[in-house]
Amino acid sequence: MEFSAIQIATFLSGTVEGDPEVKVYNVAKIEEGAPGMLSFLANPKYSQYLYTTQSSIVLINNDFELQGEVAATLIRVPDAYAAFAQLLGLYQQFIQSKTGVSSLSFISKDASYGDDVYIGEFAFIGDRVKIGDRVKIYPQAYIGDDVVIGDDTVIYAGAKLYAQTVVGKCCVLHSGCVIGADGFGFAPQEDGSYRKIPQIGNVVLGDNVEIGANTCVDCATMGSTRIQDGVKLDNLIQIAHNVELGKNTAIAAQTGVSGSTKLGSNCIIGGQVGFAGHINVADGTKIGAQSGVLGNVKKEGEELMGSPAMKLKDFLRMSVYMKNIEKLVKRVDELEKRLNEKQQ
Amino acid sequence: MEFSAIQIATFLSGTVEGDPEVKVYNVAKIEEGAPGMLSFLANPKYSQYLYTTQSSIVLINNDFELQGEVAATLIRVPDAYAAFAQLLGLYQQFIQSKTGVSSLSFISKDASYGDDVYIGEFAFIGDRVKIGDRVKIYPQAYIGDDVVIGDDTVIYAGAKLYAQTVVGKCCVLHSGCVIGADGFGFAPQEDGSYRKIPQIGNVVLGDNVEIGANTCVDCATMGSTRIQDGVKLDNLIQIAHNVELGKNTAIAAQTGVSGSTKLGSNCIIGGQVGFAGHINVADGTKIGAQSGVLGNVKKEGEELMGSPAMKLKDFLRMSVYMKNIEKLVKRVDELEKRLNEKQQ
Amino acid sequence: MEFSAIQIATFLSGTVEGDPEVKVYNVAKIEEGAPGMLSFLANPKYSQYLYTTQSSIVLINNDFELQGEVAATLIRVPDAYAAFAQLLGLYQQFIQSKTGVSSLSFISKDASYGDDVYIGEFAFIGDRVKIGDRVKIYPQAYIGDDVVIGDDTVIYAGAKLYAQTVVGKCCVLHSGCVIGADGFGFAPQEDGSYRKIPQIGNVVLGDNVEIGANTCVDCATMGSTRIQDGVKLDNLIQIAHNVELGKNTAIAAQTGVSGSTKLGSNCIIGGQVGFAGHINVADGTKIGAQSGVLGNVKKEGEELMGSPAMKLKDFLRMSVYMKNIEKLVKRVDELEKRLNEKQQ
Repeated sequence: MEFSAIQIATFLSGTVEGDPEVKVYNVAKIEEGAPGMLSFLANPKYSQYLYTTQSSIVLINNDFELQGEVAATLIRVPDAYAAFAQLLGLYQQFIQSKTGVSSLSFISKDASYGDDVYIGEFAFIGDRVKIGDRVKIYPQAYIGDDVVIGDDTVIYAGAKLYAQTVVGKCCVLHSGCVIGADGFGFAPQEDGSYRKIPQIGNVVLGDNVEIGANTCVDCATMGSTRIQDGVKLDNLIQIAHNVELGKNTAIAAQTGVSGSTKLGSNCIIGGQVGFAGHINVADGTKIGAQSGVLGNVKKEGEELMGSPAMKLKDFLRMSVYMKNIEKLVKRVDELEKRLNEKQQ
Repeated sequence: MEFSAIQIATFLSGTVEGDPEVKVYNVAKIEEGAPGMLSFLANPKYSQYLYTTQSSIVLINNDFELQGEVAATLIRVPDAYAAFAQLLGLYQQFIQSKTGVSSLSFISKDASYGDDVYIGEFAFIGDRVKIGDRVKIYPQAYIGDDVVIGDDTVIYAGAKLYAQTVVGKCCVLHSGCVIGADGFGFAPQEDGSYRKIPQIGNVVLGDNVEIGANTCVDCATMGSTRIQDGVKLDNLIQIAHNVELGKNTAIAAQTGVSGSTKLGSNCIIGGQVGFAGHINVADGTKIGAQSGVLGNVKKEGEELMGSPAMKLKDFLRMSVYMKNIEKLVKRVDELEKRLNEKQQ
Repeated sequence: MEFSAIQIATFLSGTVEGDPEVKVYNVAKIEEGAPGMLSFLANPKYSQYLYTTQSSIVLINNDFELQGEVAATLIRVPDAYAAFAQLLGLYQQFIQSKTGVSSLSFISKDASYGDDVYIGEFAFIGDRVKIGDRVKIYPQAYIGDDVVIGDDTVIYAGAKLYAQTVVGKCCVLHSGCVIGADGFGFAPQEDGSYRKIPQIGNVVLGDNVEIGANTCVDCATMGSTRIQDGVKLDNLIQIAHNVELGKNTAIAAQTGVSGSTKLGSNCIIGGQVGFAGHINVADGTKIGAQSGVLGNVKKEGEELMGSPAMKLKDFLRMSVYMKNIEKLVKRVDELEKRLNEKQQ
């Protein structure tokens, strides 16, 4: 795949400065440019590289003023970063244009699917599954009985959806994620053993949800574990039974949310955070990495940090005092010495 | 599937108050009830909902005294929660009644299996594998050579058991768990590289063990990594080589146990906990979430918390002092000021 | 498989003391020996077991001086541990000598592979994939389009390699690992939702890299996430997009490295550690378990611990002071009391 500057400019409604016929076949950061590459310049910190880059084409903002000679062909657009992301999206769509239903997949005769789907080799589609239009199910994915999958969703290789999971439209589920496994519920018995509490609920994912690789979302004991529209989960996250995550909340890798906890919408949660069970966290809460949230967060938009979590500014202040605790001890030593001297 | 109040009461040996012919087809929490639903009331905190619930049937304790009118049909039983769990278990068994050996699975001609097993599509069963009666192996599971699986065990879709793993009876292994991968053992070489130490041991799981989704249990370098009867592991847990977990120990998600560490029986371990290698933890130990256990725990039944872990009450007291460290610094400031003033 | 003492001694160029015809069929720790087992003695702490072990054969160092009668047949070698590891490696090679391409795998007609490969049942090999000699790909592994795999690499059951991943020679990728899933990159929109930033880069693994079970290495947004030669990753690790790990760096389980962070060579990282994004960590850095590394580490060979991470000795000293903070508060109480008394 090669594209000329004029082709790209036409697609982006941009204007060309330099050779309109120069061709590119891949993209690179401006500071790592090479002939045949397309780069972009959006952050002023990187302006210096514009004059030395080896890339053949650079996207820049309409209002960028040149301070010297540029070897690359420029394409001017209103927002160079947005234009670049648009090109990347196009490229990704192109390389992922898998279609067709493999004869090496297994599809229950009771299952149904829409138009233009991809179902890869060794994928399993259970009884009464309903799959929308343009859904892509990569090889070795497992779609249990009665699962529903909305239009335009992508399920990557080896993702596992237990029976009765509901997935919205335009979701992306990465390899190795497990949706709907049993919640961790056991009733202690008198002899010290545990009796399993049946977990008969399911998981419901809204639209535009992204689930990272090897992330687990357990089914509810009863009812549903709910992940609302636009939630983004990174890799290796644990979402326990009966949890609810509000709209557009984003969680970084390796965080765990315990049973029945509810996070509001538009929360931003760092990596390796832990949430206790049965708590409520207000909309717009931000939690720093490695924090432990033990109780309700009632006020919206707060920034918390630490384990147990406290207001970020309290955490930072406490950290400084702790780091200097040796000095404090020495000051107390000195005070005692002075007082003892005075009393002799 | 629909059941009438009288059918359910007969199954549970309970007594009906209200319409014996009213039918339910699913379950719901009492506060989220709806027509056609069955609910239960066990916790007195929820008693208020009995008088307003929309559910068609509610299970209640024999000794519960009504304080008002109830629209739902009641079924009285000695223990409403236990009766409800019994119904759920029946329901779960019913919906999971998979049987038969798929012609799309691969089973080595040297492998053997008992009566009434389920082996799903694209499952792999290696050489000399022995599978007991009523075992369910879901699609895409991998059962390596020489693995032994006891009666009534369930292996969900895509679980991976390396060669020579031994699994007891009535175990549940969830999707994506990996049992028997190599322990993390490398001998440092003079040039800074590592030479792999062959890991030729295996993993032995007892009876009634539950392994969560994407949890990893590594094989022993030599001998066996041992998980005793009744152990319950949540999702995304790491159990390193040569670890031993005692009977009925339960571990929450994302905890890691380093190599050769031994946990006693009936321990309860929170989420995101880390255990150092080569330590022993006494029976009945309780460890709070996000703790780090660096040394032996010798006394049985202790409750520990923190990183490094200490007695829970010491941890709580220390946390309070730390939270107030700023006040302490100000008190020392004040003491110095007073002493300086006196000395002038 | 049975081997006699004389066969083993000949293979190891060692010398036999005792019955050269005694046979062994497996290995055991010297303290857990049994007839038919081979053990070794390298660590002087275990010398006592030499005189009581039930093992049939024990490997010992040439210079070891017996202090009593030994029932086992001895094989003397220059380095008993190294000799034992050599035997284990041989044994492991033998039991893993899978070969052949299964007719139940799927291999794109555009893919190519070298001599003596193993491709197991239900493995998927995509378009234009290039596989070297003696590579083993276990059942249900997924090798996306355009992936390149070097000679002698082993990919265990169910490992997932997204399109365009490059794997070097002699690597080991364990079950459930996911290489090349999308980096976690989203541009916040004005309405609070996120727009996905296309992730079109790939992952490049050098030679002799080991990737643990269920570990995730995300692809770069552009360019490559790079894992250099000899890197060893344990289970359940998160490596985010555009990360670089230097040669021979080893990381224990459940650690996470955020986007664009660069670790130097020969670093040793404990379990459950978190690294912030966009930081650089110098060669030879050692980080203790559960630490949080928030900033650059500029000096080579430092040992850090804590969250936020500090020099190990500072961390240990601070920990002692914190543990004793109650005493400090009591000393300040006492000082205030004394000063108040004096002023009355």
